[in-house]
Amino acid sequence: MASHFPRIGISLGDPGGIGPEVILKALSSPRPFQEACFIIYAPASLLLKECESVPGCPEPRPLPEGRITGPGVYYQSIRESDAVLSGGPSKENGTVSFGSFQAALEDVLAQRTDALVTAPISKQSWQLAGIKWAGHTHYLQNLYPDAMMTFWSRNLKVALFTHHLPLKEALRKVSRDALFQFIVLLNKHLDGLAFGKRRILVAGLNPHAGEEGLLGTEEQSAIAPAVKEARSMGIPVEGPYPPDTVFLMAKGIPDAFVLGLYHDQGLIAFKWDAFEKGVNATLGMPFLRTSPDHGTAFDIAGKGQANPSSMIEALRLALQFVRAGSGAGKKNEANG
Amino acid sequence: MASHFPRIGISLGDPGGIGPEVILKALSSPRPFQEACFIIYAPASLLLKECESVPGCPEPRPLPEGRITGPGVYYQSIRESDAVLSGGPSKENGTVSFGSFQAALEDVLAQRTDALVTAPISKQSWQLAGIKWAGHTHYLQNLYPDAMMTFWSRNLKVALFTHHLPLKEALRKVSRDALFQFIVLLNKHLDGLAFGKRRILVAGLNPHAGEEGLLGTEEQSAIAPAVKEARSMGIPVEGPYPPDTVFLMAKGIPDAFVLGLYHDQGLIAFKWDAFEKGVNATLGMPFLRTSPDHGTAFDIAGKGQANPSSMIEALRLALQFVRAGSGAGKKNEANG
Repeated sequence: MASHFPRIGISLGDPGGIGPEVILKALSSPRPFQEACFIIYAPASLLLKECESVPGCPEPRPLPEGRITGPGVYYQSIRESDAVLSGGPSKENGTVSFGSFQAALEDVLAQRTDALVTAPISKQSWQLAGIKWAGHTHYLQNLYPDAMMTFWSRNLKVALFTHHLPLKEALRKVSRDALFQFIVLLNKHLDGLAFGKRRILVAGLNPHAGEEGLLGTEEQSAIAPAVKEARSMGIPVEGPYPPDTVFLMAKGIPDAFVLGLYHDQGLIAFKWDAFEKGVNATLGMPFLRTSPDHGTAFDIAGKGQANPSSMIEALRLALQFVRAGSGAGKKNEANG
Repeated sequence: MASHFPRIGISLGDPGGIGPEVILKALSSPRPFQEACFIIYAPASLLLKECESVPGCPEPRPLPEGRITGPGVYYQSIRESDAVLSGGPSKENGTVSFGSFQAALEDVLAQRTDALVTAPISKQSWQLAGIKWAGHTHYLQNLYPDAMMTFWSRNLKVALFTHHLPLKEALRKVSRDALFQFIVLLNKHLDGLAFGKRRILVAGLNPHAGEEGLLGTEEQSAIAPAVKEARSMGIPVEGPYPPDTVFLMAKGIPDAFVLGLYHDQGLIAFKWDAFEKGVNATLGMPFLRTSPDHGTAFDIAGKGQANPSSMIEALRLALQFVRAGSGAGKKNEANG
C-alpha cells in the first residue's frame, strides 16, 4: 500500500468510550487533513454505524488491496464484535481496543503507515480482557525501553525527567549523571523526530532555581553541571531556569522544549495552557506515536458531546512530523 | 481628611525604577478609577516632573488640609530630593522610597486612607540607605507576624503554604497540624477582607494527589486530615486535588482560592496566567496592601516603556475590597 501521501494509522481506543466519536469528528474537520491518508483499525460495522451519528462524517472506505491511490479516510477491518458495551469498561471492549492497537502497531512497524495515533483505551477493559499491560505507553516502553512520553500544545512542549513518583522520591532522582543522560536521550529523540533547530530549557528544582544556593543546592551540585556537560557535547540545552518562569520563556517559541524535573512541575503549566487541546507524543521508537490528552470519558460516550480538539491536534502533530521527514521508515534510518 | 470616597494610598517605590511611571500611567486610565481618591506619597517636584512625560496624566493636586472634597489624584509631599538616580539603585533612592512607604503606612494605620498600594522598591537601594528590611513584605511581617502574601489575577487566586524554601525543606513542612493552622489563618484573613462566599481548594503534594497512596502518602497522612478537620469547623475547604488540575478547577471561578503547598506549585500556573497583570496582596493586617507583580525594572526606567497593567490591577483590587467593606477602619472591627 505504498503512497506518496502521509499515512497515519489510528487505533480505535475503547469502543465504549469517546474514541470512535472523536476520531471521526476530527476527520470531519477538513482543512488540516487534506492530502493525507488515515487508516482506522476497527470492526467495520461498529465504525460505519458511529459514522452515521457524526455530522459531516467522511465515510471510511475499506483499505484497498495493494496500492492506495489517493488521500482519504480508510479502515482496516478487525474482528467484528456485537457485544461492545457503551459507556463503561468490559472484557469485549478490551479485546477490541487491544486488537485495534495491535493491528495498527503491526502496520506502522512494517512501514505500511508512517505514524500512529492512539485513541484512549480503558485500563479496566484491558484488565478484564486479560491483557497484562497498563496501557499503550506501558506496552510500548516494554518494546522500546528508551521510549519517552512528551507533552505538546501549540504554546508549549514539555519533557518530564520523572513521571509517576512520589514527589519526595522524584527529588532524590535528580542527580548529575541521570539528568545528563536524560538530556542526551531527549536530544537524540528530537533528532530522530527531525525536530530541527531546538532549545532545551531545563527547569530548576527550587524556588528561583536555588538563587545561588540560598534556596537549595541541587542546581549547583547536579543540574547546572549536567547542562554544562551536555552543552560541551554540542547539545543546545540551557538552564537551570526558575521553575515559575521557564514555561513563560518557552511560551509560543516553536523551537523551545522545556525539561521539567518532576510530574507536576511540567504538567501544571502544560495542562493550564493545553486544556482539551493537549497532545501526548511518545518519542524514541522507530515511529512517532501521538495521542489526545484525555481518557475514555465513559460518562459522555454515545451522546455526541465529545470534544475532538485534542484528537485533531494529535493528528495534526503526527502529520506535521511525517511531512517533515520523520515517517516510520525514514526515522529508522535516522536512528539507525 | 474624611471622605465618603474610597481612599487609596500609593507609595512611590524606588524613584529610579518604573514605579512613578506605572502609578501615573495607571491613574491616567480613567474608567475603573472614578469616584475614588488616590494619594501618592512622593517628593512633589519629582512627581510633577514625571507627570509631564505621561500622556493624559491627571496632574496630582496637593492634599488639602482637612477635608477631601472630591475624588481625584492627590499627593502628600515627602522630603524633596534632587539626587535621585534614574535607572539604578542608590542610597538616595532608598531614602526616598522608604520615606514614601513610611508616610503611606502611617496614613493607612491612622485610617486616613483605606488601603495601601506599594510600587516596587529596590532592596539594594534600601541596603545602601541603611534600611535593614529586605522589602515591604519583610517589614510588614515584622509588624504583623500573621501577614500572608497572596497572588491574584482575574482567573486565579493563590495562597502559598511555604514560599522561599528549598523544595526538599518545603516538603518536610507539610504536616497535618501546620496545614490545618494555615487553612484556619487563610480563612480568617479572607473573613477580614470581606471576601464573602469562598471555596478553598487545597492542592495535593504528589502526582494525581497521591492516587490513593500509590504515588505518595502525604495526602492521606497529613493533607486530607487537615482539610477534614478544618471542614468540621465550617471552613469551606476541599481537596487535596491533583496539583496539575486544581488550578484549572479554580480558573475563572470568582469564589475559588487555591492553596498551593510550595512556591512553584502555586506560582507556575499563576505566572503563566497573570503575566504582566498579576497582583500580590498582603492579607492579615489591619489594612489591605496590594502591589504589582514586578520589580523596579531599572533597565527600562525613564524610557516611557513601562507597562502599567499590573499596577492597574493592584489599584483595582484594592478599590474592589474597600468598596466591599474591607477598608482599613472596618477591617479592624471585623478582625477585632
